[in-house]
Amino acid sequence: MQEIRLASRPSGWPTADNFALVELPTPAPGPGQVLVRNQFMSVDPYMRGRMNDAESYVAPFEVGKALDGAAVGEVVASNAENVPVGATVTHGLGWRDFAVLDARHVRVVDPVAAPTLSAYLGVLGMTGLTAYVGLLDIAQFREGDVVFVSGAAGAVGSVVGQIAKLRGAKRVIGSAGSAEKVRHLVDDLGFDAAFNYKDAAVRHQLRDTAPDGIDVYFDNVGGDHLEAAIKSLNKYGRVALCGAISQYNETSAPAAPRNLALAIGKELNLRGFIVGNHRDRMPDFVAEVGAWLRAGKIVAPETVVEGLANAPEAFLGLMRGENTGKMVIKVAG
Amino acid sequence: MQEIRLASRPSGWPTADNFALVELPTPAPGPGQVLVRNQFMSVDPYMRGRMNDAESYVAPFEVGKALDGAAVGEVVASNAENVPVGATVTHGLGWRDFAVLDARHVRVVDPVAAPTLSAYLGVLGMTGLTAYVGLLDIAQFREGDVVFVSGAAGAVGSVVGQIAKLRGAKRVIGSAGSAEKVRHLVDDLGFDAAFNYKDAAVRHQLRDTAPDGIDVYFDNVGGDHLEAAIKSLNKYGRVALCGAISQYNETSAPAAPRNLALAIGKELNLRGFIVGNHRDRMPDFVAEVGAWLRAGKIVAPETVVEGLANAPEAFLGLMRGENTGKMVIKVAG
Repeated sequence: MQEIRLASRPSGWPTADNFALVELPTPAPGPGQVLVRNQFMSVDPYMRGRMNDAESYVAPFEVGKALDGAAVGEVVASNAENVPVGATVTHGLGWRDFAVLDARHVRVVDPVAAPTLSAYLGVLGMTGLTAYVGLLDIAQFREGDVVFVSGAAGAVGSVVGQIAKLRGAKRVIGSAGSAEKVRHLVDDLGFDAAFNYKDAAVRHQLRDTAPDGIDVYFDNVGGDHLEAAIKSLNKYGRVALCGAISQYNETSAPAAPRNLALAIGKELNLRGFIVGNHRDRMPDFVAEVGAWLRAGKIVAPETVVEGLANAPEAFLGLMRGENTGKMVIKVAG
Repeated sequence: MQEIRLASRPSGWPTADNFALVELPTPAPGPGQVLVRNQFMSVDPYMRGRMNDAESYVAPFEVGKALDGAAVGEVVASNAENVPVGATVTHGLGWRDFAVLDARHVRVVDPVAAPTLSAYLGVLGMTGLTAYVGLLDIAQFREGDVVFVSGAAGAVGSVVGQIAKLRGAKRVIGSAGSAEKVRHLVDDLGFDAAFNYKDAAVRHQLRDTAPDGIDVYFDNVGGDHLEAAIKSLNKYGRVALCGAISQYNETSAPAAPRNLALAIGKELNLRGFIVGNHRDRMPDFVAEVGAWLRAGKIVAPETVVEGLANAPEAFLGLMRGENTGKMVIKVAG
């Protein structure tokens, strides 16, 4: 088997040198365990935080040990009755081609209920659940709201915008980092408006695309995006603080919303969340979003990179915004 | 009668020149109106925002016209059956010694139920209600919470800390701007700890006085206080964004919490509010806080300035933090 280890901790932007691909004998499952051949693994922005040796909501990766993260694969050996050979499972040991896990640490999924297995890492997985919980529970989305989402062409943002439209948003606006992504948001995903944040100040582009203000901001970016959203938010506006990818590779104190005091008079509510504490919403999410996906009402684009060895480069590309939709690694066919 | 008008709009810190005292004939009440002789009027930090010609949650003061704000006084002439001569009323036309109002715009209060009439501008008035709503409804205070309040020796902060203690806080910490205020918080108001924010970095003093972190932050100050609180907040911490007095006189973009992204992993909730939209809580507030006040369980210090003509200077002193407790102007005996 092969696994990718954290070779060293990055300062600022990570590089390929921070990762090391290592060959090992394929392990055998112990009592109650299964051996999974990973077919797809996920790279996600939150992994950048785990590369630091810093207090966070998930334990840091350890130098000299394999990274981990969401993966989906097929059980190829089993000592657990309820998870037989041939089952398709999702689990938390990505960044390797084979994984041994206790059966209680895998979730058996239906391989034909999803358009591709990789959907269990994206639109039907934790990134989809993040979008669902963040929009509906954290930001308390209501029919008729004007919604702004940053990182809108990414795995989470693209689902946020589509759920908002399907749930009756008055208007959905997205920001992204290229003209092609902007086109994609409007033409393929049904956003009402979108802009390239590199073209001009976010606050100006947001004001122009949301002349009557916004009611909900789903923040994947932080920094100037959050400041612009605070400016544009209407009375009783709500913010789901989901990510701050603009800041993950900063080595100095990042830009902050200098206008946060506007939250007083506007009576805004800003609420941070991480999806791990909202797994109880998975059944509702799978029922609603799964049905939309099967009915073709939700589009779930992916950027697929072939080969475990290319996972570090894919992760770096994710940090640079090179993906459209969910970035996944095809580990095996 | 006399009234104080806005002579000009300040840029940065206001000065006495921005105010003008004007003498006028005392008006007579029209049909359904009352004439009130003001006994006390309130100066409050939010009034600084109204001196600007800027969009806000309350209309700006107009240049050349009288300022307004909370006041309490005695009805000396009445054309309204339900508000007779001799009644004590609170209303919104401070900054003058006599006021004519429609009877529906005054609230009759019991002059003997309060230790002094001025309490209706403070602990039993809107500043007390601000403390009550902000702590209990906005910050969702729970018994056993560790609470930090900035501007703790002020009208709102002093009540926040005392309500928190009476409602079962594990620990209440306050910040203020002088050694005397720090002593006052601990010795007179029962705070568990307090510090002078001018002595050293807020984040260090907060860490030292709250070594196990805080659960609730009641923000009257903004800026470095908010940043320090975000750093010290525990998982699922809650922030009531009530004021940002450190920023009201800034002419450039103010300091902002550069660590706001910590709100994601800690799943913090930051919520702005203004008390005007929470008047429905007045009965609960008066019942609970009024009972504590009568039982001597709440101390309500005041800084009383004599004479309407001194109201501008009192307001400037409030901005500089010269008050302890509620700052009121004694307009008449």
